[in-house]
This record gives sequence, structure tokens and C-alpha cells, in this order.
Amino acid sequence: MADVAIVMGSQSDWPTMKCAADVLGELQVSYEARIVSAHRTPDRLHEFGKTAHEQGFKVVVAGAGGAAHLPGMIAALTHLPVLGVPVKSKALNGIDSLLSIVQMPAGVPTGTLAIGEAGATNAGLLAAAILAIGDDALAQRLVAWRAARTAAVNETPQD
Amino acid sequence: MADVAIVMGSQSDWPTMKCAADVLGELQVSYEARIVSAHRTPDRLHEFGKTAHEQGFKVVVAGAGGAAHLPGMIAALTHLPVLGVPVKSKALNGIDSLLSIVQMPAGVPTGTLAIGEAGATNAGLLAAAILAIGDDALAQRLVAWRAARTAAVNETPQD
Amino acid sequence: MADVAIVMGSQSDWPTMKCAADVLGELQVSYEARIVSAHRTPDRLHEFGKTAHEQGFKVVVAGAGGAAHLPGMIAALTHLPVLGVPVKSKALNGIDSLLSIVQMPAGVPTGTLAIGEAGATNAGLLAAAILAIGDDALAQRLVAWRAARTAAVNETPQD
Amino acid sequence: MADVAIVMGSQSDWPTMKCAADVLGELQVSYEARIVSAHRTPDRLHEFGKTAHEQGFKVVVAGAGGAAHLPGMIAALTHLPVLGVPVKSKALNGIDSLLSIVQMPAGVPTGTLAIGEAGATNAGLLAAAILAIGDDALAQRLVAWRAARTAAVNETPQD
Amino acid sequence: MADVAIVMGSQSDWPTMKCAADVLGELQVSYEARIVSAHRTPDRLHEFGKTAHEQGFKVVVAGAGGAAHLPGMIAALTHLPVLGVPVKSKALNGIDSLLSIVQMPAGVPTGTLAIGEAGATNAGLLAAAILAIGDDALAQRLVAWRAARTAAVNETPQD
Amino acid sequence: MADVAIVMGSQSDWPTMKCAADVLGELQVSYEARIVSAHRTPDRLHEFGKTAHEQGFKVVVAGAGGAAHLPGMIAALTHLPVLGVPVKSKALNGIDSLLSIVQMPAGVPTGTLAIGEAGATNAGLLAAAILAIGDDALAQRLVAWRAARTAAVNETPQD
Amino acid sequence: MADVAIVMGSQSDWPTMKCAADVLGELQVSYEARIVSAHRTPDRLHEFGKTAHEQGFKVVVAGAGGAAHLPGMIAALTHLPVLGVPVKSKALNGIDSLLSIVQMPAGVPTGTLAIGEAGATNAGLLAAAILAIGDDALAQRLVAWRAARTAAVNETPQD
Amino acid sequence: MADVAIVMGSQSDWPTMKCAADVLGELQVSYEARIVSAHRTPDRLHEFGKTAHEQGFKVVVAGAGGAAHLPGMIAALTHLPVLGVPVKSKALNGIDSLLSIVQMPAGVPTGTLAIGEAGATNAGLLAAAILAIGDDALAQRLVAWRAARTAAVNETPQD
Repeated sequence: MADVAIVMGSQSDWPTMKCAADVLGELQVSYEARIVSAHRTPDRLHEFGKTAHEQGFKVVVAGAGGAAHLPGMIAALTHLPVLGVPVKSKALNGIDSLLSIVQMPAGVPTGTLAIGEAGATNAGLLAAAILAIGDDALAQRLVAWRAARTAAVNETPQD
Repeated sequence: MADVAIVMGSQSDWPTMKCAADVLGELQVSYEARIVSAHRTPDRLHEFGKTAHEQGFKVVVAGAGGAAHLPGMIAALTHLPVLGVPVKSKALNGIDSLLSIVQMPAGVPTGTLAIGEAGATNAGLLAAAILAIGDDALAQRLVAWRAARTAAVNETPQD
Repeated sequence: MADVAIVMGSQSDWPTMKCAADVLGELQVSYEARIVSAHRTPDRLHEFGKTAHEQGFKVVVAGAGGAAHLPGMIAALTHLPVLGVPVKSKALNGIDSLLSIVQMPAGVPTGTLAIGEAGATNAGLLAAAILAIGDDALAQRLVAWRAARTAAVNETPQD
Repeated sequence: MADVAIVMGSQSDWPTMKCAADVLGELQVSYEARIVSAHRTPDRLHEFGKTAHEQGFKVVVAGAGGAAHLPGMIAALTHLPVLGVPVKSKALNGIDSLLSIVQMPAGVPTGTLAIGEAGATNAGLLAAAILAIGDDALAQRLVAWRAARTAAVNETPQD
Repeated sequence: MADVAIVMGSQSDWPTMKCAADVLGELQVSYEARIVSAHRTPDRLHEFGKTAHEQGFKVVVAGAGGAAHLPGMIAALTHLPVLGVPVKSKALNGIDSLLSIVQMPAGVPTGTLAIGEAGATNAGLLAAAILAIGDDALAQRLVAWRAARTAAVNETPQD
Repeated sequence: MADVAIVMGSQSDWPTMKCAADVLGELQVSYEARIVSAHRTPDRLHEFGKTAHEQGFKVVVAGAGGAAHLPGMIAALTHLPVLGVPVKSKALNGIDSLLSIVQMPAGVPTGTLAIGEAGATNAGLLAAAILAIGDDALAQRLVAWRAARTAAVNETPQD
Repeated sequence: MADVAIVMGSQSDWPTMKCAADVLGELQVSYEARIVSAHRTPDRLHEFGKTAHEQGFKVVVAGAGGAAHLPGMIAALTHLPVLGVPVKSKALNGIDSLLSIVQMPAGVPTGTLAIGEAGATNAGLLAAAILAIGDDALAQRLVAWRAARTAAVNETPQD
Repeated sequence: MADVAIVMGSQSDWPTMKCAADVLGELQVSYEARIVSAHRTPDRLHEFGKTAHEQGFKVVVAGAGGAAHLPGMIAALTHLPVLGVPVKSKALNGIDSLLSIVQMPAGVPTGTLAIGEAGATNAGLLAAAILAIGDDALAQRLVAWRAARTAAVNETPQD
């Protein structure tokens, strides 16, 4: 039983969404990665959304590109917090993905991160921050992770 | 039993989507208008998409605004032709609606019309054109409707 | 005599529009591919639009890029359903093609698909869905095609 | 027989396109204003484009909004210089009109002006500038018109 | 001691951000609303971010418009989950606010909601969903709130 | 003494603007190509604009990228027709160039062509069309050039 | 002899640019406001740019809308620091003004502020900040002005 | 003690920001380059902004990409003039960086330059222009630098 579900619309989203998995791994947060295509496997989507809570997930991270309906449709099906990652699209660089995910109507939220890999990493971090509310040890790991990042910033740029 | 289903995400889409109903009425094409919210009533959406064909619908016209998932999700659930109408949104004038509807991945098409009322009228017309392939009388009514529009164009502008 | 006309503005659109041809081929829908340039061969366009119906076409799929006038102009000349494919353009990635095709005024619809190859594939699929209304065997092939796509989606992403 | 044809897609474009007529009137350039809808009256468009030269027009000013195909289609049908005015559209403020007019493929030019009334005025002025190449008296009127505009600019802003 | 901090860049953001407060009130989630201007009160921002956790806040909802730096800067200063609301801006309708909030670099996430009031409501709902992970009673209230919204959707549109 | 001045903001615009020169050459229209940088050589710009008419130019084709001020500033300085070519820019693909050239205020027109090479070719063609008003031989060459292009369009696409 | 020149393209820019004047007045910085239209009064522009330094100006604040060439052209003509204010335009809300001002090529800078009144106020403030480098009393007034603004921010929003 | 601080959000901004350093070097203006990440090192940012003036800096040049908060946050913390450079971002080519930097609210200005290297060069030049107000020798070097650039512009383009 994992705390975070990382779902994505297709195999091609994995190189992006792997960044979420990586950072969750670094923070020792359990996760499962699955492919759930809103458009090609709508039954799987429906089933996943309906049962995400009872499967024991606490947070859902969902990534998709183009007319990206996956995060919003999961958010329609579960009361769990859903974080959306706009995957960079071919023609429009992910601006379509971003608007399709973030512009949800009042009532059904998706917490949206940046387009692409940075967004996937940040979805992992935000999921961790959410779980850390009730998990002090995780909170400390998160604080330490952030502190290490801060410490790694050089004072001056190098040629 | 109606030929065309006109579905929309909320009551607030009706002033736009009514244009589809109006033109279908003029062309004597049967339709039913329903509210199916992808985000607030995902079960209704799932049910509708799954049964649209057996309910006897031949074409689905779907309108929604913002992160507009309704047309694409119906298209994921039925093999019937789905036409999408991007309803004008509050902040972004419907560019979000348009991209959310039109940028579907290969495999699940939505035939998308213009943003707003023109798009809704045209969804009705395109549904009629589709049905007219197998209905000569409708084809004639459509041709006549178009001819009347042509005839109504003045030669010169009036102050 | 083919059911679907696939027309495009220039030879350079063929790598995109071929995706429509391919999927129609897979679904055993007859088609003819032609070059009809709205801007370089306006007479051919006029002739094509005027006679598309009597040539026996039932659906027109039209692709063009930039100031893409082909789909809309054909839609002005025939009452057949016209599906538009915005071909990716050089400078603006197809956002110009998309708006030129989708933003038609009330009265003359073009059912618009996604920018680029996904859109061309989907135009083929939507044409098939339209023809399937009156062709049960095609409907079954389409349903099977979709089911195969659904079945091909893995449960989990692979590195 | 007028030197400039001012054509527009619909009566609703006239309040914009009238600005072109007004400035041509001030400069004593003859013009005729006509409605030629690319989408509702494609035959009229074809006829107009084919005969514009033999009707004696020397320059065509064409205005349209949304998926604005009129200027480019006329340019496809005549070798006369065609100037395009993107009329402000309802949902997208004319950015669709602009891209539909200006992004023409190599081979068929439309000289495009600004969105809306400023563009219409400028289409009139550019038409006059074009005609002034072969008409010294008009050139002088144009120079004077410009000089008067220059002279009318105050040195300091007034509350 | 409140669970949710609702912070905003200026008094003028309150009509938007009040939607977050309202929905939190409906769900009986405690909150405090404060003005923290990233640009006019950077010390207050720094202080708030640094102490948000020890003040007992569990989630921060932050709204701002234009070059909206508040959500991201708070996220830089605390490991608590930060949800961002892009407030509609004067000239650009909030697209600037959206990009300024959502496009955070890897390492510092803000979970971004839709532009304007819908986004503020959804920030409240997402904060509640986050808190509901560790609060079953709240989870039940949230589920009920959602169910009531679902039940309120009419089957058919009303003129 | 050449009929057309082809001016550009920098040497780096030449690969684009050469397309204008090429088509003018094909049509046997005389031209001169010059670098006139609005920003680096404002005196040369002022001088060029002021004297373009007396130098014997009849049409000015001006290309520039980014904050592209060259076409509009020349149009401010001469009553000759000025055609603008938005050169593709590094970061924004020429949408900045396009808006900087086309969105001129009422009173000072620039006839704007497409972004990049297509636009440069078309500026050459439009210049020729303008000159052809008073030059029947050129008109015939232009008509022939267009006819050859029409004849070169294949009926069907080739793999 | 004033330290700051506030120039604008037309009288209609004054309601925006007055915000620059107002804040300079509050900070007791001397200024002169003038209309210098790049397009209607190019000679005045040339003269102004060439002589701005010898007239005793130390900073130029320039505002314009649409294809806004004024700030960049002044920057081409003087080595004084030039600050640009994109005035909100009719059709495109100032995004055209912004890109026309900010996207200057390397070599000729304009320091660009926000679209509209906020940008004009900020141009005044930035001009003051620039002058304050060599004027301690002004620096103190500026610091005090900023502190007063900080102090005026309420702790909590008011209904 | 240097006159200009060149700060940037990360090492990856250095290839862009180096252009500012280079031109300041050419003009013999002293500078220091530092990495100050608004998001990863918010304390360093706070410290830097608070002490920039007492460290002896006269102008701050700040570059960042994506949700670029660095320039605006420094501007919130110091009364020194702050110049912002939008670094080109991965997905959106820097339009997000630009809007995040330029659209500051009234009261806290950042003088924004073009996206990318041109903008960084120009930030250096504008900093020099600002310092030249009180340094005649620098003014002369700047005038000479500009004159050399003018002289380097060829009269005609070379193949």
C-alpha cells in the first residue's frame, strides 16, 4: 500500500513523471506509478478515481499532455488531493496541457505544477509536503532535503 | 428517441448551447438537451458516454468552458461522432476551452467548432450535415437553409 | 468512388495528412487523397467544393497550415461535413492554422481536430465514426479498433 | 468605375471598414463598398476575385473577422494588390482575424493592417499611397493629409 | 490557531480570496486571512514564511495578481504546502498571474489553481482535502459537500 | 535607380529578405537592398525615409525582427507604400516582430506580410503587384508567374 | 530645465502617463511632459532624441501603445537611460505595446515597465531611483515614500 | 566595491547574464556577479536586497527564468534601481519569465529588458547609461561604444 499514486496518460509521459517518482524515493515516500489514460482507458480511469481512497492512496499525482483531462477527471472522482503535471506537448509546448489542467471550475480542484520535468519534481515535493503535515519524520527529511538544496547554491557563477 | 444529444457542463452553458438546439430545430432534426458535468457528475458522464449509442443517439454535441473535459471524455466512452463547443470562459475568453477540447491525442477525436455561440450554431449544422449523409430530405433542408443564408447577404453595406 | 476525400493545401502537408489515410485504410474506409490549394489553385478548390457531393464523397477531410483557408472554403462550397486538420506551421507551430480553421462564423462549420499528426489521425477516425452511423460493419470495426487501443495500454510505465 | 474596392465579409464589418471609405473620401480616391462573404457567398467571392481587374479596380481592401478568409481568397483570385483588415472578433479580440489574414503562404500576398478601425483607416491610406505612385496630384493630397496630421499634434498633453 | 493561512498581496485581492475563506467556513476548517504583500511588505513576507509552521498553520493559500510573487516566495520560505491563486489582472486577465505562480523551478512547488474566483474556491477545497487526509470527520464533510454539489446538477437545462 | 528598396535592420535579416529580392529578380523588377538599422543607425533611417521618394523608389519593403521598428518608422517618414516583413525572432518566433510591425496607429500604414521567408517572398510579390498597376508588361509577367505556380500543383500527393 | 522628460505618442496616452508625472511630483523631481509621436511627428522625435541630453534631461520616460516605437527610437537617438511604458491598446490589451517596447535588440536598451498605469507610476519611481544615485536628499524622499506605502498595508483584509 | 551587482537565480543563467558582464567590462564599469536564488536561497535574497545599497552597489541587474521572482523581490527590498533580464525558459521560451518580471504592481519597479542574451547585454548598457548621468567619462565611453556599433553597420547586405 503506497501513499502516493503517480498516474500518467501514457508511457510517453514517464520520462517526465519519473521526476516525481525520483524525488519521492529520495524522501522515502511510498508511491505506485500507473498508466491511466483518460481517453484510451476511461473505465480504468473511472475505476481508479472511485477506488483511489480505499486503495489507501493519500495523494494523487497525475500527469498528462495536450487536452490533458486526467488530473481533472480523477479530481472529479475522488476527494483526495490531486496534483496535476502538464506534460510538454508537441505543437504547443505544454500551454495546452497547462490550461487543460489548471482552469478547473469551482468545486473540483487540481493543484497544478509547472510544465514538464520541473513540475513533476515539484508534484513529488508537494505530495511530500502534504504528507509531512501528519508525519514529523517526513517533515524533517523534507526540511533537510530543502536545506541541502540551499547549501548547494554557489555564491558566484562559474564560467 | 432523438438523433442528436446536446450535452453541456452546466446550466450556465445553455445560453450558448441553445444556438445548437435552435438550428437543429429549424432543420427538423430531433435532439435532447442535457446537463452532464464531467467534474460534478462524473458518474452521469460515464453512464451517458457508455449508453449514448444504445439510447439511440447518432451524434453528440458537447459544450463546456475552461478546463473543458466533457467533449473529450464522452469521445473516450463512445464511438459515436462527438462535436465539441468551447464555451467562452471568464478569464481567458475561451482559449482555454478551445485548447482543452481540440488538442485530443491520436485515437479519440472531437470535432471542434468555434468559441461561443457561433460554434454552437455550427455544431448543430455539422450534426445535421452528418445526419444528412443518410437522409436526403434533411440534406435538402440543409441545402435550402444554406441557400437562404446566401440569399440574405446584401450586395452593399448599409450605414 | 471513395467515401472520404482527403484534401490538402500542398505536397508538404502529406506527411501529416497521411495519418488520416492510414487510419482510414486500417478501418477499410475508401478514400481519395488530393492536393487542392486554396491559394494557388482557387479554381480547383471551387470546382472541388461544388462537386464533392456529386463525386460521391460523403465526408471531406481537409488539412492546411498557416493562414489555412482550405477547410473553411470547402465548407462554404458543399453541405457535406468537413473536418479540418491544422498542419503545424513553421513560425507559430500551428496556432495560426488552428485559429484559421476553427474560428468559422455561424453558418459554415468545420469540425476541427488537433494540430498535426494526432489531428490527422483523428480526422480519419471521426470520418469513420460519421460513416459508421449508417454502416454497422464499419461501426464494429471502429469499436474493435478502439478496443485494441485500449487493450494496448500497459498498467505501469516501463523505464 | 472606382479605383478601390472595399469588400467585407458581412454587414457587421461595416462600422470598421467605413474608416477605409472615409479616408479614401477625404483623399478624393474613388471606391466602391461591397459585401462579399467568403463563407456565405463563395460564388460571389469567386466571381469578384476573377473579375476585379476587369471591373477596373486597381486595389482591393478586404476586411473580415475570426477565421478571416476573404482577403487571402481574393488574393488567390486576382493579381491586383490586396490589403487585409483584421476585424476585431468577439472571443479573441481579432488575434484570430490577424493570423488568418497575415500568415499567407509564399506566392499569394495580402498586405495586412492593424486590427480594427486603425487598420481600416490605414488600408485606405495605403491604397491611396499605392495609387499615388502613378498620380502626382493624389500624392500631393496624401502628403498634405499627412502634414495636417503632423501639424495637429500638440507639443504638450492637456489634462 | 488556525489550520489554513489565507494570504493575499493586497486588499484588492480580497473579493477573489474571500471565496477560499467561504468554502473553508462551510467545511468548518479554521483559517486566518492576512495581507502580506511580497513587494510592499517584503519583511512581513519573510517573517510570515519563516514562522508559518511554528504559528501552527498546516496549509498556506496565497493569492496575488500580475507579477505574482507571493505564493512562490512563501513556498521558498516554508516547507508547508503552498497553494497559489492567480488573481485576474487588469491588462492581461490573469495569464501573467498564472505563469508567475505556476512556472516554479524544480525544488520549490506551488500547487496552482485556476485564475480568479473559481481558483480561490478550489484552493479552499484543496486545502480541506489535504487536511482531510488526517481528519476523517473533515473527510466526511468534504465528501458530503461534493455530493451535495453533484445532487444539485439538473438533468436538463432551463431557459 | 531602382523601383523597390529592400531595407532590413541587420545583416542577419538578409537570408530572410533575400526571398524578396529573388522574386523581384524573377519578375524583372529593379530593386536595391540596403541595411538600415532603426536602432543602430537612426540617422541613416531618418535620411533614408526622408529621401526615399526623391531617390526614385516607388515601394519600400522593410524587414526586421523583435521590437521591429524599421517598417513603421520608414512609413512615418515617407508617403510611399511601405511593406513590412516580420523576421522570425530568437525567443518568440516572430510574434513580437509581427505585432511590432502590423499594429500601427491610424495614419501611418505598413502593409504587413507573414513571418519569415514566406512573408519576404510575398512582400516582393506585393511590391510587383503594386507596380503592375501602372505597368502592363509587369502585370503580364506577374500573371504568368502566378499561372506557373498554379500549374505546378500536383493533383495528388506523392509519398 | 527638468531632470525627467515624460514623452508620449499622443494625447490619449496622457491619462496613463500622468501617473508618472504624479509620482515624480510627489518626490519633488522636476519633469516636463511632451507629446512626441514617432509616427506622426518623426522629425520632432529625431530632434528630441538628438537633443535630449543637451536640453538637460537626465532620464527619459516614454509611453506608447500598439506598435509602440517611441521608447526604442528615442533610445536609438540618445545615450540617456530610456524607460518605456506600454500603454494598454484597444484590441490586444497592451501585449503588442509590451513586446514592441521590451524586445529591443542588443545595443539599444529600453527599461520597460508594466502595461498601463502601474507601469507609468513605476517609470516615475524608477526615474527617481536612478536620479537618487547622485542625490541623497531624493534617495531619502524615495525611501520615505516607500516606507509610507509599506506602512499603509493593512494586516488583514476588510470586507 | 563595485557599482553594479549582477545577480542571477542559478548557475544556468550565467551564459545569458555573462552578456551583461561583458558589456560592463568593455565600458570599464565595475561589477560583481553573484548567484542569489529567490526560491532556493530566500535568506540570501533578503540579505542581499536589504544590504545592496550599503554594500555600495548603485544599480542591480537581476536575471531569472520561468516564474522569475528575483528582480521584483530585490526591487521590493532596495530603493536602488533594479533592471530585470527574463532568461529564456525551457517550455515557454521566456514569455513566462518576461511577464513575471515586467508586470510589477505600482510602487515597486523593475526596468525590464528583452528575453535572453540581447536583454542581458542591454541591462549592462542601461546600467552604464544610468551611471553615466553622474560620470562624464563613462558617458563618453558609452557614446563611443554606441558610435562604433553604428559605424559597424554595413550599407548593403552580403551574401
